[in-house]
Amino acid sequence: MTALKKALAVADEQLDASLERLMALIRIPSISTDPTHAEDCRRAAQWLKDELDGLGFDASVRSTELHPMVVAHDRGAPKGVPHVLFYGHYDVQPVDPLEAWERPPFEPALVLQPDGETWITGRGASDDKGQLLTFVEACRAWKAANGALPLKVSMLFEGEEEIASPSLEPFLAKTRNELQADMVLVCDTDMWDRQTPAVTTVMRGLVGEEITITAADRDLHSGIFGNAARNPLQVLADLLASLRTPDGSIAIDGFYDDVAELPEAVRAQWARLPFDQSAFLGGVGLSQPAGEANRSVLEQVWARPSFEIHGIAGGFSGDGFKTVIPSSARAKVSLRLVDRQDPNKVRAAFRAHLHARLPQDCAIAFAEHGTSAATVLPHDGEMLRKTLEALSEEWETEAACAGTGGSIPILTAFKQQLGMDALLVGFARFDNRVHSPNEKYDLTSYHKGIRSWLRILDRLAAG
Amino acid sequence: MTALKKALAVADEQLDASLERLMALIRIPSISTDPTHAEDCRRAAQWLKDELDGLGFDASVRSTELHPMVVAHDRGAPKGVPHVLFYGHYDVQPVDPLEAWERPPFEPALVLQPDGETWITGRGASDDKGQLLTFVEACRAWKAANGALPLKVSMLFEGEEEIASPSLEPFLAKTRNELQADMVLVCDTDMWDRQTPAVTTVMRGLVGEEITITAADRDLHSGIFGNAARNPLQVLADLLASLRTPDGSIAIDGFYDDVAELPEAVRAQWARLPFDQSAFLGGVGLSQPAGEANRSVLEQVWARPSFEIHGIAGGFSGDGFKTVIPSSARAKVSLRLVDRQDPNKVRAAFRAHLHARLPQDCAIAFAEHGTSAATVLPHDGEMLRKTLEALSEEWETEAACAGTGGSIPILTAFKQQLGMDALLVGFARFDNRVHSPNEKYDLTSYHKGIRSWLRILDRLAAG
Repeated sequence: MTALKKALAVADEQLDASLERLMALIRIPSISTDPTHAEDCRRAAQWLKDELDGLGFDASVRSTELHPMVVAHDRGAPKGVPHVLFYGHYDVQPVDPLEAWERPPFEPALVLQPDGETWITGRGASDDKGQLLTFVEACRAWKAANGALPLKVSMLFEGEEEIASPSLEPFLAKTRNELQADMVLVCDTDMWDRQTPAVTTVMRGLVGEEITITAADRDLHSGIFGNAARNPLQVLADLLASLRTPDGSIAIDGFYDDVAELPEAVRAQWARLPFDQSAFLGGVGLSQPAGEANRSVLEQVWARPSFEIHGIAGGFSGDGFKTVIPSSARAKVSLRLVDRQDPNKVRAAFRAHLHARLPQDCAIAFAEHGTSAATVLPHDGEMLRKTLEALSEEWETEAACAGTGGSIPILTAFKQQLGMDALLVGFARFDNRVHSPNEKYDLTSYHKGIRSWLRILDRLAAG
Repeated sequence: MTALKKALAVADEQLDASLERLMALIRIPSISTDPTHAEDCRRAAQWLKDELDGLGFDASVRSTELHPMVVAHDRGAPKGVPHVLFYGHYDVQPVDPLEAWERPPFEPALVLQPDGETWITGRGASDDKGQLLTFVEACRAWKAANGALPLKVSMLFEGEEEIASPSLEPFLAKTRNELQADMVLVCDTDMWDRQTPAVTTVMRGLVGEEITITAADRDLHSGIFGNAARNPLQVLADLLASLRTPDGSIAIDGFYDDVAELPEAVRAQWARLPFDQSAFLGGVGLSQPAGEANRSVLEQVWARPSFEIHGIAGGFSGDGFKTVIPSSARAKVSLRLVDRQDPNKVRAAFRAHLHARLPQDCAIAFAEHGTSAATVLPHDGEMLRKTLEALSEEWETEAACAGTGGSIPILTAFKQQLGMDALLVGFARFDNRVHSPNEKYDLTSYHKGIRSWLRILDRLAAG
């Protein structure tokens, strides 16, 4: 019996105990954005440290300005094998609206579904407690079966991922030597579909901005001032309209300078993916991709930069009607970046675009809401190839290389501070309702996730 | 001593009591747009009825589908004199943002200003409780001094003026015979400046609209859908931007067809008015008229139609940031009309303009918020001449014929239902902050307003 087969057998036998540990972690309401849950964040960090200590790791809780980090290095690491740093986050999103939950968010349960699947319910079940424990439990099973891991493994868990990881970059800068490894492994992404595992290799970056336009020094009556007074809501509409051309592209000067066309091989692979564009849009009541003409939906959401308006506020928007010309108007917007677009350059070009179009008697102010570059994992790497093979074996179907339209800012931090690429392997499903009421993680995701990591560890160690 | 002099003396002596009554009326928070204040609207109507009963009027509160009307006819009306119908409204605008008020909006106070003026503070102090009581208190003083009024006087007060008077037209249709008079008198407008009284003879109409754009059937995450999903906020911005051309004109097909150029005589009169365009805009922190190029501010606000956005709502606009693509977005807008523009035709053209530009996967819905044509009072009428003389006498300076950019939809209703023109005489000041926090009415406006009506009543009765 190979070391891998032994480890897989242990993982299967110990699944109930693995589940107990996941439920214990879900029970800790580690909501990072809510100061009243700071102590719960610390408890979650301590829980992880204790588990990893018990597994033979040298684990510690490290304070930051907000929620602590957990760092762990395997004590029994062999020499001359690749070194991986596994990253996850123990913090979770808030749970409001609480009344929308069918079960209390911090009382996890196993709920059998009509289709035979079993859901593990609760806030964080998927994002990211269930996902991060697939890796920890894989290490546990391997060690139980074989004594020592086949790779050198370190782990890093943070408690601020849901609030944009303010402490991560300074922490990585301080621990650069300690955390240096060959590759970062992350488990915080989705499967391609229920059958098809995926490695996420293309991720868009993000420039978040809040714009405030001000004109008169007070609200005005449109009967008295209408026409003559500059209306910040009209200015805002004009500016926002100026950012997208009628063909769906973004009208900022130089915006596409650092956006290369997708390599033909990747485009071909995406075209082969089991993806029904009509079903993707139809599932939310739409029928036509709204972005650049002649680009597929997958290209639009993975490989093309976007501009989206997330919120507009200003004037009177309650019930009834008020003929006010407000003194100010606000919008929250974001630009999603791809390829080599520099977020700071994009932000400057965005602001310059608006400044250049600002009419007289107006002021414009900007506030930053997040900054990250896109990340792209080279498609010809050895570790990626091995990981895809391991996943294909476990799930008995060809694993996909996928993109994600959402930014994962921590990847930028790892790349910039440690010079490391990250391999994103996740077992979550599209319908897990992360960040929403009734979050769940499928038992299949958890069980086969643990088994997948065992196969990945085995392959990566094979050299 | 003439009847007029006696009445003026009584008005001066009784000013404090008149003020007490105004403050009592301001204390009733009769916000017509807010259903939770419906009972307060009824209380304000009842308060007026009781006061008018006490003055020897035959007064009654008349139910409508929403807020009641108050109708009153003087019991002691002489024969063979002109019959005037005074109109006012007891409802007020909402008070949000409440935190911007220096004093509670429904706890009126007298506040001495550094320049020696005294402000009567509170929501409705100016618009229209203070203004309407100038007429009621003038009748009180005349009756106290002389027993009977010199004219036949009826009054009509409504509680829906701030929400576009939905009940007024049907009510006038029903009471056509009862309310027929020679002229409508209205006190809901401004002085020309602090020294110069004015009769408002040119008024813009209004088409109020609420637009709702919907796209996907739920809120979407812009990481997953950004670019590919139609964003209702972007659609709304594009549509709103399409309504104004860069030169400040309105881009709706045929919009200016029924807008004639101002007669040269009127333009010349307006040019002679003591009006400092820079001070008008500078007083609210602006410097350049934002409407059509080469049109004076007075032309822009009195004689040119406008399009204004009053409120936009949609997506996430709280603190922080949420990369949502909302399923819907809303805007409240209005078109101000001049000259012979037909509001129904304008509304249809406005909607057609937006429908024609609506992208795929979107729906648009409209809700009406008011409809009125512009009104113009003939400049050569006898009652207008007498009123201007009376005002010039009280204020010791030549009274102005002015325009107003705000619509007074009730004028259309009086014209259409009763065939009556209206004479608009108001004592409010430009800086009264009507519809805004910290509304006030000057004690001078109130006192000399009462005195002005006494002189007008006297002149109109003189034949």
